[in-house]
Amino acid sequence: MECVSHCPRRIAVLSVHTSPLAQPGTGDAGGMNVYVLQTARELARRGVEVEIFTRATSSNLPPVQEAAPGVLVRNVVAGPFEGLDKHDLPTQLCPFTAEVLRQEARQAPGYYDLVHSHYWLSGQVGWLARDRWRVPLVHTAHTLAAVKNAALADGDTPEPASREIGEKQVIAEADRMIANTVEEARQLIELYGASPDRVDVVPPGADLTRYHPGDRVAARRELGLPPGERIVAFIGRIQPLKAPDVLVRAAAELLRRDPARRLRVLIVGGPSGTGLQRPDALIELAEALGIGDRVIFLPPQPPERLVQVYRAADLVAVPSHNESFGLVAIEAQASGTPVLAADVGGLSTAVRHGETGLLVPGHRTPDWADALGALLDDEPGLRAKGAAAVTHAAGFSWEHTADGLLNCYDAALDEFGGRRRAGARLRAELAANDSALPRVAGEEARPEPVFGEPGQARTRALWRRRTGVRR
Amino acid sequence: MECVSHCPRRIAVLSVHTSPLAQPGTGDAGGMNVYVLQTARELARRGVEVEIFTRATSSNLPPVQEAAPGVLVRNVVAGPFEGLDKHDLPTQLCPFTAEVLRQEARQAPGYYDLVHSHYWLSGQVGWLARDRWRVPLVHTAHTLAAVKNAALADGDTPEPASREIGEKQVIAEADRMIANTVEEARQLIELYGASPDRVDVVPPGADLTRYHPGDRVAARRELGLPPGERIVAFIGRIQPLKAPDVLVRAAAELLRRDPARRLRVLIVGGPSGTGLQRPDALIELAEALGIGDRVIFLPPQPPERLVQVYRAADLVAVPSHNESFGLVAIEAQASGTPVLAADVGGLSTAVRHGETGLLVPGHRTPDWADALGALLDDEPGLRAKGAAAVTHAAGFSWEHTADGLLNCYDAALDEFGGRRRAGARLRAELAANDSALPRVAGEEARPEPVFGEPGQARTRALWRRRTGVRR
Repeated sequence: MECVSHCPRRIAVLSVHTSPLAQPGTGDAGGMNVYVLQTARELARRGVEVEIFTRATSSNLPPVQEAAPGVLVRNVVAGPFEGLDKHDLPTQLCPFTAEVLRQEARQAPGYYDLVHSHYWLSGQVGWLARDRWRVPLVHTAHTLAAVKNAALADGDTPEPASREIGEKQVIAEADRMIANTVEEARQLIELYGASPDRVDVVPPGADLTRYHPGDRVAARRELGLPPGERIVAFIGRIQPLKAPDVLVRAAAELLRRDPARRLRVLIVGGPSGTGLQRPDALIELAEALGIGDRVIFLPPQPPERLVQVYRAADLVAVPSHNESFGLVAIEAQASGTPVLAADVGGLSTAVRHGETGLLVPGHRTPDWADALGALLDDEPGLRAKGAAAVTHAAGFSWEHTADGLLNCYDAALDEFGGRRRAGARLRAELAANDSALPRVAGEEARPEPVFGEPGQARTRALWRRRTGVRR
Repeated sequence: MECVSHCPRRIAVLSVHTSPLAQPGTGDAGGMNVYVLQTARELARRGVEVEIFTRATSSNLPPVQEAAPGVLVRNVVAGPFEGLDKHDLPTQLCPFTAEVLRQEARQAPGYYDLVHSHYWLSGQVGWLARDRWRVPLVHTAHTLAAVKNAALADGDTPEPASREIGEKQVIAEADRMIANTVEEARQLIELYGASPDRVDVVPPGADLTRYHPGDRVAARRELGLPPGERIVAFIGRIQPLKAPDVLVRAAAELLRRDPARRLRVLIVGGPSGTGLQRPDALIELAEALGIGDRVIFLPPQPPERLVQVYRAADLVAVPSHNESFGLVAIEAQASGTPVLAADVGGLSTAVRHGETGLLVPGHRTPDWADALGALLDDEPGLRAKGAAAVTHAAGFSWEHTADGLLNCYDAALDEFGGRRRAGARLRAELAANDSALPRVAGEEARPEPVFGEPGQARTRALWRRRTGVRR
């Protein structure tokens, strides 16, 4: 799609808690980082300048980096570079906001046409920026506390109530929202009271120029993986939510049933989140199950090596307890590898059950072992699924995602323009009645950010309606 | 003092976490609430309009309340009315800020001349409001995490690192700061890197029209207290920081030494903070020490009853582990009652050792029992100290405090005016070079908040200097 009616000239993208330049697969960096960077690239290719604000986590970072032609990353200093994790970040949102507003204030007026926030922390900042800049706010939640807590892994820590409160506020304030899947749109509407006509479903994509089928033998050679065995790969952050233990247990069960089976599990990623409390837990689990020698660990891989991981594997497993989309499943399929995934969230969309892989309800070891065995033991079926996977994944390109974003931006700018005109009329009327009000000498006239301002009464009413909290 | 050079016409006061209309002595309400309300009244009497923004904690509150002539309290809806404590509030600072800015935006331009924030949470909001409104930010810390953590009661929970980080940021951003005592000014400078020429020492006051000596017998009758006994009163929130247990232990020790001693301990206040985890701990302690029948508990009292508490007591004890000032000590002395206080923080200023009471170093029971016995057993000495206390307290009036605040506001506005003129020149130069920059049609010219903007580089440098964090 080329921009026609309301194409933004330049947008501010907020990604407070993780930089699009961070290596996915460790820390707080995952699919969202890939999403933010790839959509920015694609938008820039179409002439929309993108500036991404993220919190600086190292004193070595320059204030501004060019991530791609037309894509700047602004590393905002707000709080110490190290030692703050995602749960400490709410205390740094005001300093982050202040610095974002100061950076914009150094530019010509009207510098950004729209602000797009990713994850609820950024949404809290986006709402203030929207008021200040008088532009629409588009928000993508990526994950939702209510959904995450409902699908919590055993022993994992629930998300705090304050996050759910913060999410509800952002969803009430955003002009439009992007959901990755129909399922996520339903959650936004049913669990968070989002207005259905403000939610656009835009599936994420994969970099199809990078992720496509290739020589498995060469890929295994490059990665130092054994040529003559079945390899099932897990790619992602090692934390309870992502559930790599489900794959390890299923593999152990298969090997218990048939100890002669030539099977390796490949785990690619670093510990993260609550997984950091016991970084070696997965290694210990494999040892305890007696398959320590059958599990290979690799650190997070850059994209040019990651495609070789997908090609090297016979099968990629995505056993997450929850995924708003599951980018890894699309990248794997684009690389010609079938996927065995949990039947949760966006994975039910990302994988076609029986065609490009299998979806398993729940996380019970016997179910996962059965599905894993059925896939691995059917060589022709596996080949057919690999081929179907490539076709299926071809529908998920970042070009397609960018089309969806531009449609959403177009609608947001269109609605906002309407409100802006109505607001100008209202201001003129107010000003006519306000002429008796005192003004400070030397204070310049200033446009008031009346647009999108629900006012205290509406905020109160919204709050009650959305949360059910009455006092 | 009457305003002469730079008297603000109207100021915004930020008190995010507790309303000046809340009853002190319970929840998060204490001396700071009294301070905010009394100084607002006194400023309003001198023609400075005061609008106090606080977070609404009940749906029954009107959006605006008149607290006194010229003093408005604005109850800002940000997050649920109940269920958030002080430690959850950082997640609500962006919504609170957004609503404060929206309320101001409905007024004529230049509505507030200055913003004064109380406690670090409000400081984080004040810094954004200052940027937006282009007015100076005056900040009062009231308590400091570094100081509180250094004087932590046994078993009490330390303040989180994120608070200390937040405090450092506010102190780096504020145009001027108010310290309650010379000691607090020293802490701001030495522990937080505040620039000495930006800190004004302004002691808090007491409402001397309310707190003055009166009939002890009548006061005891009104409160239902025994007429023929020695009464030592503790007034404050029941939490480890305030250390009412130190008084109870000292009383038990005195009674162990002489069981015939006619002594009662009067505790006035409600459980708060970490004290809420075991609200009956103090009652249980008194029982365990065998003096359950010698301790009387009263709920927090409104000012008209509180003065009777001070008059009814032979002695008021303030055993806190830390106090930035200790308003109770001044109110007690103004009411003619000597004070036995811990020799910490502002209490060392509020009480004159040997003249208006005694200061005890540390919190050891034998030391406190000795001091308590020495005071109570010297009837003429107690009378003399009571008389001296009235004279001493006369130096602490809210009128005097308001004088100090106006001096500070004057300096802040004066400095800010200078920066504003320099900023206008800079903007004119920038505009001359910026004419080639694109502007969005219909976007009105907007003043840029360049004042007081240190910029990323300065923020970075400040951060390193102030925190020593280098990575």
